[in-house]
Amino acid sequence: MYTVGQIADHIDGYVVGNRSVKISSIGSIHSANSGQIAHLSNPQYRQYLASTNASAVILTESDQAQCPTVAVVVDHPYVAYAKTSQLFDKRPRVPIGVHETAFIDASANLGEDVRIGPFVTVGAESNIGDRVEIFDHASIGGGCSIGADTVLKSHVTLSHDIHVGDRCLLMEGCVIGSNGFGYASEGNQRNEPIAQLGGVRIGNDVDVGAKTTIDRGALEDTVIGNLVKMDDQVHIGHNCQIGDRTIICGCAGMAGSVTIGKDCMIGGGVGIAGDGPLELTDMVYVSAMTFVSRSIDKPGIYSGHTLHSSNSKWRRNAIRLNDLDALHKKVDRLERQIKELLAE
Amino acid sequence: MYTVGQIADHIDGYVVGNRSVKISSIGSIHSANSGQIAHLSNPQYRQYLASTNASAVILTESDQAQCPTVAVVVDHPYVAYAKTSQLFDKRPRVPIGVHETAFIDASANLGEDVRIGPFVTVGAESNIGDRVEIFDHASIGGGCSIGADTVLKSHVTLSHDIHVGDRCLLMEGCVIGSNGFGYASEGNQRNEPIAQLGGVRIGNDVDVGAKTTIDRGALEDTVIGNLVKMDDQVHIGHNCQIGDRTIICGCAGMAGSVTIGKDCMIGGGVGIAGDGPLELTDMVYVSAMTFVSRSIDKPGIYSGHTLHSSNSKWRRNAIRLNDLDALHKKVDRLERQIKELLAE
Amino acid sequence: MYTVGQIADHIDGYVVGNRSVKISSIGSIHSANSGQIAHLSNPQYRQYLASTNASAVILTESDQAQCPTVAVVVDHPYVAYAKTSQLFDKRPRVPIGVHETAFIDASANLGEDVRIGPFVTVGAESNIGDRVEIFDHASIGGGCSIGADTVLKSHVTLSHDIHVGDRCLLMEGCVIGSNGFGYASEGNQRNEPIAQLGGVRIGNDVDVGAKTTIDRGALEDTVIGNLVKMDDQVHIGHNCQIGDRTIICGCAGMAGSVTIGKDCMIGGGVGIAGDGPLELTDMVYVSAMTFVSRSIDKPGIYSGHTLHSSNSKWRRNAIRLNDLDALHKKVDRLERQIKELLAE
Repeated sequence: MYTVGQIADHIDGYVVGNRSVKISSIGSIHSANSGQIAHLSNPQYRQYLASTNASAVILTESDQAQCPTVAVVVDHPYVAYAKTSQLFDKRPRVPIGVHETAFIDASANLGEDVRIGPFVTVGAESNIGDRVEIFDHASIGGGCSIGADTVLKSHVTLSHDIHVGDRCLLMEGCVIGSNGFGYASEGNQRNEPIAQLGGVRIGNDVDVGAKTTIDRGALEDTVIGNLVKMDDQVHIGHNCQIGDRTIICGCAGMAGSVTIGKDCMIGGGVGIAGDGPLELTDMVYVSAMTFVSRSIDKPGIYSGHTLHSSNSKWRRNAIRLNDLDALHKKVDRLERQIKELLAE
Repeated sequence: MYTVGQIADHIDGYVVGNRSVKISSIGSIHSANSGQIAHLSNPQYRQYLASTNASAVILTESDQAQCPTVAVVVDHPYVAYAKTSQLFDKRPRVPIGVHETAFIDASANLGEDVRIGPFVTVGAESNIGDRVEIFDHASIGGGCSIGADTVLKSHVTLSHDIHVGDRCLLMEGCVIGSNGFGYASEGNQRNEPIAQLGGVRIGNDVDVGAKTTIDRGALEDTVIGNLVKMDDQVHIGHNCQIGDRTIICGCAGMAGSVTIGKDCMIGGGVGIAGDGPLELTDMVYVSAMTFVSRSIDKPGIYSGHTLHSSNSKWRRNAIRLNDLDALHKKVDRLERQIKELLAE
Repeated sequence: MYTVGQIADHIDGYVVGNRSVKISSIGSIHSANSGQIAHLSNPQYRQYLASTNASAVILTESDQAQCPTVAVVVDHPYVAYAKTSQLFDKRPRVPIGVHETAFIDASANLGEDVRIGPFVTVGAESNIGDRVEIFDHASIGGGCSIGADTVLKSHVTLSHDIHVGDRCLLMEGCVIGSNGFGYASEGNQRNEPIAQLGGVRIGNDVDVGAKTTIDRGALEDTVIGNLVKMDDQVHIGHNCQIGDRTIICGCAGMAGSVTIGKDCMIGGGVGIAGDGPLELTDMVYVSAMTFVSRSIDKPGIYSGHTLHSSNSKWRRNAIRLNDLDALHKKVDRLERQIKELLAE
């Protein structure tokens, strides 16, 4: 429970109306009830403002005059809504201190006010920053560093020599620093493992989804930029480099040595892999379920998926697709014949 | 080792022949040996009945007369076979009681005859139902409830405020209740996390595969209906709703706010994601590796995958696919020219 | 730090030049510095040999004369490079012995010089081979066997009755032996689980990637051959059989009862699933993101993915694809009309 005034202070806004009104939860502008705070950022929802039942609305100065209830005026209402939602997050915290069942190597360094839960392991020479929160069963190998205020949820694994920045959130069961996939075959010698001698470096404010895997580099490190956000079950191969603020949706996977620029958006289920290293420039958006097999050097939206249809219709079209080149050649032949006919 | 009579009682069938015959394992009707029980449900296997070496066969009344050995007559032989197979499952059980290394919060409630293995954690205010079996290293956050007779295998993670019904089976390493993937970007403010304040509610008799992830909702809960069966490495985004009895095969993934009806079948590797919330009605079957980007409002089978061919052939066709619209336009032009020629 | 002589002995090569030169790390032939060892296996890099700054180069006899520095002559330089990289792997080892927090069933057998980390569980009647190394939080069920020199990284799960060969590497969080996905539906009886009574057998020198899942068989075992290498987030359904030396890249998934031959290469994100059991013969290469829905009986390269393009272009082509059969029929009609016109 917060007052509107407390919320406004948290999101750097000012209140038009009664700062003391109490807010117990968050609602949508068209369905919120008394005691809830809503926000107006999408213009399509402006029609609901006049009749909203919310006790307060977060909005921009230009919408304030139309607000029938307490207004919290900000520059960016959607971002302010996100920050407000964080206030209402009641997730349990690991208590400050080290749980008696955790196993911390004697040479590890723990910062101030760390929170370390049951059955956590921390390896030799690892540095755990101030206020870092580590949930039960997380495993941190040797030579790692974790920046201040970062949170590791249950069952997270950091292999050895992994460096994570400040304010990151590593979600349940993600694995950072498993071996990259590299084998040498030559003559009759097959699948000899190439040791993966690099590590992983993760910037600040990075989120890593549940069960996501980020492999360690072969010689150099795999690098994740600042403010990168990754959803669940993403796979990042060895020596990938992901630019700042790029978003990677669930189940996307990329092979080794893929470089992605800044401010990109990689859709769900996308695959990125080529014969050699690939590079996507800044501000590239790749639609869900697209396969990217060549580099992309111009910002823009790229797609390559197919559209579903009824099975009987699809079956005919899919078979035809495997004759498409022949169809092209046939049409070219018909075109020549028509040209001759027209010339007669 | 069971007698045919014991098996018949377990599957609500009646025996024609000697109830005392001993059965040590399960076989297929065409390859079973003495001491094995087989079943006949698929008509294509009826040809093997007369010559089967099985010591007993589960079948329907109409096939009983042709059975050369002891018959167990039931209405649904395939379901009866499934129930019989459960009798022969020799999987190790966690012993009744709480393992000495488990860490159970003092405010948690444990039902009768619970089985809790090594290194399990149970958070504050969580309720563990009667006869629930929790394997080693499972992590149950605060405020969760688990219904009677549910089994959690090793390394399962339930985040906080997760509700699981009765008789569910959560397989190794699945994660229920990780954060949904939601960020606000506006102006120069980028990727501000939206707190995920909802939980996850899972019905009765639900199976969740190994490494499957089901995200918690943003404001409302993510909801999984009764008798839903999910394979390994499935991903369910925040606020999805999955209808009763729907089956989701391995590696399928769906974005947030996807609603799937009852009795659907989602094939392996399928992706479901659109610009906004999507809805699939009841009894929709989606073929493996299909991308569904629009809602489906009629029951039926839907597909969208491509068919493999030799690489050299595929390369030509795939390139042509990216010229398909031009080909269409060319054919339209040729059609007009032919029309003119025919009109002359 | 090794001398060139020590490295040459490790990779069965001979030195031309000073065996005492000290090597501190590995570099690429075109960018290596003094103190580094490089290798020459790809002919495209031969141009860099004369001017390399590496202190030593691994190469074949035929390239030795052109080497400006110490040469290590071997038959297979790429494989020799892989073996050299292993020398420089400084990954932390679990100490010999059983960590005090590990929970080993009294009936389990431990070989000589095993290394068992914190919070590991080993179930009843399981056999752990000599020098096996098991990282923290790994879970080994009952009735398992693990061959000599195999390594299990953190959070690996072996369910019960799983057999793993010698010198395998099971990466973080993989799950071997979760239930296969099998349910019986008949009449109004829905989704009755079929018990998965088989196990999993894994050969020698097999690598399993992080978060990869290999399901146990229904009646028979799921079988992985020798020297098979699997990347992260691969899924292998029940009763699959994978031939020796086959490589499976990240995020590939296969349904139950898929048989893959020897020396195959399955690309990233590939899906393999059909109406019934599928079989791929030896030496089949499947390109990334291809869906294989029919058996393949000839060695070769197979593809089925689509190529990305700009979104506006793709949208037109993807819609046309769902009219492709109609286009074929139209072209056939035009062809007949032209034939008539030409016959006039």
